Amino acid sequence: MNRYEGQFESNDFPESIAPLEVEQKYRVESHEAVLKCLQAMKAIELPVETQCDIYLRHPCRDFATTGEAFRIRQVNDSAVVTYKGARLPGIVKTRVETEVALADKTDGEWLQILLALGFCEAARVRKRRRSFRISFRTETFTVALDTVESLGSFIEIEAIVTDRSSLSRIQKDILELAKQLQVDQVEPRSYLRQLLEQLQRNS
Amino acid sequence: MNRYEGQFESNDFPESIAPLEVEQKYRVESHEAVLKCLQAMKAIELPVETQCDIYLRHPCRDFATTGEAFRIRQVNDSAVVTYKGARLPGIVKTRVETEVALADKTDGEWLQILLALGFCEAARVRKRRRSFRISFRTETFTVALDTVESLGSFIEIEAIVTDRSSLSRIQKDILELAKQLQVDQVEPRSYLRQLLEQLQRNS
Repeated sequence: MNRYEGQFESNDFPESIAPLEVEQKYRVESHEAVLKCLQAMKAIELPVETQCDIYLRHPCRDFATTGEAFRIRQVNDSAVVTYKGARLPGIVKTRVETEVALADKTDGEWLQILLALGFCEAARVRKRRRSFRISFRTETFTVALDTVESLGSFIEIEAIVTDRSSLSRIQKDILELAKQLQVDQVEPRSYLRQLLEQLQRNS
Repeated sequence: MNRYEGQFESNDFPESIAPLEVEQKYRVESHEAVLKCLQAMKAIELPVETQCDIYLRHPCRDFATTGEAFRIRQVNDSAVVTYKGARLPGIVKTRVETEVALADKTDGEWLQILLALGFCEAARVRKRRRSFRISFRTETFTVALDTVESLGSFIEIEAIVTDRSSLSRIQKDILELAKQLQVDQVEPRSYLRQLLEQLQRNS
């Protein structure tokens, strides 16, 4: 019962120890060329996932301004909740990420609770994700080949970093790995941002 | 992926179908007399629980004014999150309750996420709860014998109601069951409220 003795305030959130997500997204015409590169580099394929991300608006904080994100991700029959902090400085998108698996079939109840607390849905991002694990230089990266409903095809190169002293090296590795995969059309916007901009244009 | 087709706004929260918690709390000197009554009435004892409730403040809503509550409850080695809505009219405390089990050992990550979202701890209520299930008239009730740290001994009589047409009957049953258990010192305040008032008096 004493796992968190002492009381936390919101500004005690231990940013400095939370894992960082370092990722770069690239727009591609198709996944074909990248797929050939990954196979040549002996990348290991992971199970394909159909993901539906329910992005939530905060009851009193504008995530578009703070750069944070909060979502429920449904993956096949399971679900996870993810909080992403504001973007940190660096040559590649880097932010605190806390992800927590939900107990079986509780995503509906969680959505109910979050709505009751004043969160509301911003949008749903639906995609098919084919992922590969690849060792490159001294690190392991995940390369995702995403086909996103209404948005098209993308590549994401990602690493989760717990040791902050290796951060700038890993950011450089990601850019170098992108070169090897022959992708160069950086897409700095999140899928959510792209989708909201598209909805706005079409309205 | 189509479990919640269409998008919800916070005011779409389906209050009318969420289960209601109907409960009355009584202050007692000791549990001894009630325990004898329960045994005479053939109540079924449930496993004893040691509970630690971490009550959270909302980032921009005053739960003390709205009457809502939001907490993480650690019970032995597991945890649940509970949202309770504002009190509804009636002779016994009645409110919407949505409770969701957390996946194994994820309460720490949930607390991190909620703190990052601007929630903060209001207080922790620690208690030992001995519970009994009892059939009374046409319903089943839970009677909890609580020993609450810093507050003392209490009895809670509770039912979870999904069919709202039986609500007023069940509220009356609870008062009648209290008579049978020979408890009469109603405590309208939650444990959280009592604890915060005590902290204020002592500061």
